[in-house]
Amino acid sequence: MIVDSALYRDGVRVAGGGDPPDYATLRAGVRRPGDFVWLGLHSPSADELAEVADAFGLHPLAVEDAVHAHQRPKLELYGESLFLVLKTLWYVDDTDQVETGEVNVFVGADFVVTVRHGAGSALEPARLALEADPRLAAQGPSAVVHAVADRVVDGYLGVVAELQTDVDEVETSVFSGLRTRDSARIYTLKRELAEVRRAVQPLREPVRRLAGGQIALVDGDIEPFFRDVLDHLTRAAEDVDTMEALLSSAFEAHLAQISVQQNDDMRKISAGAALVVVPTLIAGVYGMNFRHMPELEWTLGYPFALLLMASVVAGLWVFFKRSGWL
Amino acid sequence: MIVDSALYRDGVRVAGGGDPPDYATLRAGVRRPGDFVWLGLHSPSADELAEVADAFGLHPLAVEDAVHAHQRPKLELYGESLFLVLKTLWYVDDTDQVETGEVNVFVGADFVVTVRHGAGSALEPARLALEADPRLAAQGPSAVVHAVADRVVDGYLGVVAELQTDVDEVETSVFSGLRTRDSARIYTLKRELAEVRRAVQPLREPVRRLAGGQIALVDGDIEPFFRDVLDHLTRAAEDVDTMEALLSSAFEAHLAQISVQQNDDMRKISAGAALVVVPTLIAGVYGMNFRHMPELEWTLGYPFALLLMASVVAGLWVFFKRSGWL
Amino acid sequence: MIVDSALYRDGVRVAGGGDPPDYATLRAGVRRPGDFVWLGLHSPSADELAEVADAFGLHPLAVEDAVHAHQRPKLELYGESLFLVLKTLWYVDDTDQVETGEVNVFVGADFVVTVRHGAGSALEPARLALEADPRLAAQGPSAVVHAVADRVVDGYLGVVAELQTDVDEVETSVFSGLRTRDSARIYTLKRELAEVRRAVQPLREPVRRLAGGQIALVDGDIEPFFRDVLDHLTRAAEDVDTMEALLSSAFEAHLAQISVQQNDDMRKISAGAALVVVPTLIAGVYGMNFRHMPELEWTLGYPFALLLMASVVAGLWVFFKRSGWL
Amino acid sequence: MIVDSALYRDGVRVAGGGDPPDYATLRAGVRRPGDFVWLGLHSPSADELAEVADAFGLHPLAVEDAVHAHQRPKLELYGESLFLVLKTLWYVDDTDQVETGEVNVFVGADFVVTVRHGAGSALEPARLALEADPRLAAQGPSAVVHAVADRVVDGYLGVVAELQTDVDEVETSVFSGLRTRDSARIYTLKRELAEVRRAVQPLREPVRRLAGGQIALVDGDIEPFFRDVLDHLTRAAEDVDTMEALLSSAFEAHLAQISVQQNDDMRKISAGAALVVVPTLIAGVYGMNFRHMPELEWTLGYPFALLLMASVVAGLWVFFKRSGWL
Amino acid sequence: MIVDSALYRDGVRVAGGGDPPDYATLRAGVRRPGDFVWLGLHSPSADELAEVADAFGLHPLAVEDAVHAHQRPKLELYGESLFLVLKTLWYVDDTDQVETGEVNVFVGADFVVTVRHGAGSALEPARLALEADPRLAAQGPSAVVHAVADRVVDGYLGVVAELQTDVDEVETSVFSGLRTRDSARIYTLKRELAEVRRAVQPLREPVRRLAGGQIALVDGDIEPFFRDVLDHLTRAAEDVDTMEALLSSAFEAHLAQISVQQNDDMRKISAGAALVVVPTLIAGVYGMNFRHMPELEWTLGYPFALLLMASVVAGLWVFFKRSGWL
Repeated sequence: MIVDSALYRDGVRVAGGGDPPDYATLRAGVRRPGDFVWLGLHSPSADELAEVADAFGLHPLAVEDAVHAHQRPKLELYGESLFLVLKTLWYVDDTDQVETGEVNVFVGADFVVTVRHGAGSALEPARLALEADPRLAAQGPSAVVHAVADRVVDGYLGVVAELQTDVDEVETSVFSGLRTRDSARIYTLKRELAEVRRAVQPLREPVRRLAGGQIALVDGDIEPFFRDVLDHLTRAAEDVDTMEALLSSAFEAHLAQISVQQNDDMRKISAGAALVVVPTLIAGVYGMNFRHMPELEWTLGYPFALLLMASVVAGLWVFFKRSGWL
Repeated sequence: MIVDSALYRDGVRVAGGGDPPDYATLRAGVRRPGDFVWLGLHSPSADELAEVADAFGLHPLAVEDAVHAHQRPKLELYGESLFLVLKTLWYVDDTDQVETGEVNVFVGADFVVTVRHGAGSALEPARLALEADPRLAAQGPSAVVHAVADRVVDGYLGVVAELQTDVDEVETSVFSGLRTRDSARIYTLKRELAEVRRAVQPLREPVRRLAGGQIALVDGDIEPFFRDVLDHLTRAAEDVDTMEALLSSAFEAHLAQISVQQNDDMRKISAGAALVVVPTLIAGVYGMNFRHMPELEWTLGYPFALLLMASVVAGLWVFFKRSGWL
Repeated sequence: MIVDSALYRDGVRVAGGGDPPDYATLRAGVRRPGDFVWLGLHSPSADELAEVADAFGLHPLAVEDAVHAHQRPKLELYGESLFLVLKTLWYVDDTDQVETGEVNVFVGADFVVTVRHGAGSALEPARLALEADPRLAAQGPSAVVHAVADRVVDGYLGVVAELQTDVDEVETSVFSGLRTRDSARIYTLKRELAEVRRAVQPLREPVRRLAGGQIALVDGDIEPFFRDVLDHLTRAAEDVDTMEALLSSAFEAHLAQISVQQNDDMRKISAGAALVVVPTLIAGVYGMNFRHMPELEWTLGYPFALLLMASVVAGLWVFFKRSGWL
Repeated sequence: MIVDSALYRDGVRVAGGGDPPDYATLRAGVRRPGDFVWLGLHSPSADELAEVADAFGLHPLAVEDAVHAHQRPKLELYGESLFLVLKTLWYVDDTDQVETGEVNVFVGADFVVTVRHGAGSALEPARLALEADPRLAAQGPSAVVHAVADRVVDGYLGVVAELQTDVDEVETSVFSGLRTRDSARIYTLKRELAEVRRAVQPLREPVRRLAGGQIALVDGDIEPFFRDVLDHLTRAAEDVDTMEALLSSAFEAHLAQISVQQNDDMRKISAGAALVVVPTLIAGVYGMNFRHMPELEWTLGYPFALLLMASVVAGLWVFFKRSGWL
Repeated sequence: MIVDSALYRDGVRVAGGGDPPDYATLRAGVRRPGDFVWLGLHSPSADELAEVADAFGLHPLAVEDAVHAHQRPKLELYGESLFLVLKTLWYVDDTDQVETGEVNVFVGADFVVTVRHGAGSALEPARLALEADPRLAAQGPSAVVHAVADRVVDGYLGVVAELQTDVDEVETSVFSGLRTRDSARIYTLKRELAEVRRAVQPLREPVRRLAGGQIALVDGDIEPFFRDVLDHLTRAAEDVDTMEALLSSAFEAHLAQISVQQNDDMRKISAGAALVVVPTLIAGVYGMNFRHMPELEWTLGYPFALLLMASVVAGLWVFFKRSGWL
């Protein structure tokens, strides 16, 4: 599906592309370096993409990647054009899960084609942000790459913040002293973190190259902006690492809590058992059949025995309470 | 065994090699750079290989490797010729196990000799794919190297997908709440993953070199295709890493589950024991031999005692149910 | 809030900036390389910062970072000017917790602007230290950068020392033989250490660059001083690593202690149980209803039975004491 | 002890050295580059070595190393001569243990001195292999270095194969379901693996340098042979890593098995206990002294009670069997 | 405190420095490159050090480090002079602990100043060793640096050997089958190892630079000697790593032993309990009050019951012995 298409001249949107857009007319509107066409697609069919590839001369290998999706984040240079793959992430509140999509960006001297897969992370905000800053947009296609990467990486930081909340909850739960079963929750969170890492980690090298001044298509003035994106990316990666380490520690603490609880339970059970077996012994004693057992003859023998049991139980209760077993 | 042999001219198969193939005639058919002979062997005898080595001038060390198999993946340059070792992997459904084979590729300016060991991963599909794309095949022997590497690495991705299914199953099993014994299964999976890693990891450096433009025999136009293979290889390696980490976490969660279950069992057992020992105490009391025990004289003393036991048991039952011990 | 502003000439403070400071007049006082204006802000409003940015020509991306705070430590070069972000740390005794703030340093040829966020780690001492050493101050803005970095990193060492004390306490507690519950404490300490690491680790690269002689604004004579800061930073990082490893070992030892204690408890409980069930068996024997049981007829049968029980209990007690079960 | 000494000309052994060998005469036989003397020593006394050092001009630091043994594997260049230290490994079947020796190789333009310490890993086979391949031997002293390194590294692969068998045994034992005590065995194997790693790991850098074409004494034609050795070395190192990881996993699985067994035992014990305490309760009930207990008067009361006990026990037995507790 | 001071000419000690030494006179005795003054201090006061710093022109930052001690090992170049910090280690047999000191070495073209802190590791032996080898001493100040580093690193190897003994003891203890409590011992050893690592690890880079031929003050002939020191240092580091890994494995094995022991104890306890509760059931049966219980009337009923109990206990005993529970 073609989402939007437009010609940008001197950083300003001067013409939409029509529906369906006429690529030739659009590109013909490019007058000087920095002018460009931005075409945005969402889950295009193979045919749509083939047509676009044809119009803009995209490399077959890149086009194949863009159709199949499920690529690793990467930056490829095919001759003078550039192909960037980013994973998009968003957090679904209902399921507490991280979902992933993909954005492919084809960049030439006078055009950008963005191909988005997956439900979340629309690129409309990136387009609006760019259109709101003509000075940046005037830098040409690399400004679009920055706008897209910035938006995607901001999405990572949002997801990381949500996961941080989840990690804090797990932490509270582990140390709540309750009989919680956090191991499944910790496992799921580790899985989500691995998902995030797979989006974040392989993107660092591409963004580093974009920020490093070695790619012709990237204007020098825009490099600090890519360094900014790289910085956010690094922060996301560090946060993921820290959370992973904390989850591992939390899990270990959880294991220790289980052991301590088992120990506590065992001692509580034993103390409870003592409260039963000791009076049972007393009952057993007075159940013996000796002919000469003075207590048995007492009028108050029976109440005495009950009282004896009760006081032994009370004594044991106090003893176990004091020693922390009950 | 010689599987196939043919002369490729301008990317098109022009002549088969006969049976047995006449190497000299085949090579004589090479007219310009890009033309080549592709000879495919399967588990050749030392004699067969010696003859081929002689005909194509293969380096003795490489030939020795190709006879013995069980090499690490590697890329060797002997003067102007090139020797590539790849491990092949396939998943055997019946045993849920990963099996390994080996492919050795000898490359010269005008020939490729592929030597395959092991049952799985035939190279026929690679040959067919190449023959279906004459433009690529016209790049010469390096196109064959790509076709073979592409097919082998696709095999890795298939195996990785199968293992992913197994990992998901283990995960479901661990968190099923049942008294599963997943540690053996997790161990076996880790072993399989180690097997895959041994094929994938050492191949990255060779493919990186093939994609890096430093090897004379590899045509510049074909480098993006090797970068594509490298990308798939990296994805396989990352998936293996992720699965390993998940299995470790799953194993830890499994350990925690065992502890929690033991704790639950212990409390269930204790509660069950209480249901027996407390009425035993009551029976003990009424088994005492005191002369003056009014209940013993009651007509309904016995039913009363039984009722007392029953109500105590019922009370305990409710108490333990409520506190989650039963 | 503007904390202080002053002009330094030949390393000596020659004029304060007024309130509010008149930036133009201050900068006009600069006569030769090495003279500079130092403006110190604390949690400035966006407007205050915008005004400063305007007066000194600060880069918009850097200014944005300085407003939002919560950046990673980093060193950015924007053309000829330099932007340094440091995290500040201080230890709050009341809560045994590490808190974090941030210092942003903008450096030009003739000015330094420091922006501090967070309650702790005032920069006043850094200013006083610099003013006390005119020879160093005469090196120009890089001397201010050093003074600030030195003070911040000294703060790290202080925090590290406090955490070392906490780690020692945990260690003592783990091996005290008492039924301590150190896992929560260890977890919290690991969290604090992660906090410190996030301040220390990413600062190493910036300080290394400042010490490495590749930045024009940093005078060669001041590089050994940055190497000194780097050295302190490395020590802090190593101490954090060592403490982390010790905490992990301490946690494992704690786990082992729990297991050992459970084992001890179990044996103690079993021995205690034996002291009850064995006399119960004796009572049961003498509670049997055989017609011919000589002991039952004895005048001293009952005391004999009690004595028998008592001696068996005493015997078991001695036995269990000796074998270490009680 | 001097084991052997000989002059090699054009790759052929032309003269033994006599006993004791006359070094001067031997070296005088060298006619052209590639001719060399090979002197083999086994655990020489300091005096023997001093004499050799004098005759061949060996560097004092290297000689000192060769006397003391217990060095790390390393490659040292002293001016134009070369000093290589290798650890030798062999597997002693009787004790299932890996033992270590050492080989020091001094190389000059026209001589090689090999000094061996330890019982295993004689170098005779290396000498025979070299003498069997005059074309290789004609490459001069570096061919000897290769022959020695090849033999030593082949020894590593043999040891690795033996350890692999041990690891497989441990694995089988862990998952046998028996009450095995594998932790000691796993520990010992890890220790052996650490031993192997200490021989293998530090040797990689020296062999890489020998294969890398940067050492004057190593002929270019022999470099592929060193790359082959490096390959074997890498395989040994990878196998050691894989085995270590598998042992760690196996140990964890062993821990899980212990926990599961303890759980099984606990449930079995509890079920067993129930089979005793429930009939005890029944006996207690019929041991009560109520005047009116109809069953007591029944003629078949006693058999009825016994039958009741037996059926309760049988019922519990079936119940526990079905729920997997027995 | 000034320990010793002397002038070395052509590697020979030609003059002591007097008490207090007259630095100017001493340095005036230097005639040619390689002649030097060696001044040795032990825990000098700030004043003593200031005087020396003045006489030899030491860099203020280095002097500050030397006063405060507790630095990381490092090598600093201040212009033409060199400042080396080493940690010294020694093993105190009484406490089984590793203690640390520090040596600071200031090196100029014609002087060496060594400053030692801490009780152990006197440098006298280094001085004697140097004086015993005039050829080495004639290399100038770098020979002193080597002598000191060599002695300090030999100290490391000594400490490592002592710790190896401790590790072996722990290992024996863990696998002794006794109810040992090794976790505290293992923890302490890990702490000591961390101490050693902090001395060894950061020294490698400085020694590598000293051996690498990039420092003007270090004579080329002495570089192999520094490589020798580096080699020892690497060995120490590797030994520490190996010991750490072994201790971790030993700790894990210890954990497994605890679990196995608990399991054994539990089964032993259960078997013991069975020996009591089963006869108690028998006693309970014969304590029932049925009117018609033939055994109760038997003359030998009581002995029969006792015998029955005894044989049941004996039977259980044999059963549990055979199944390994007792």
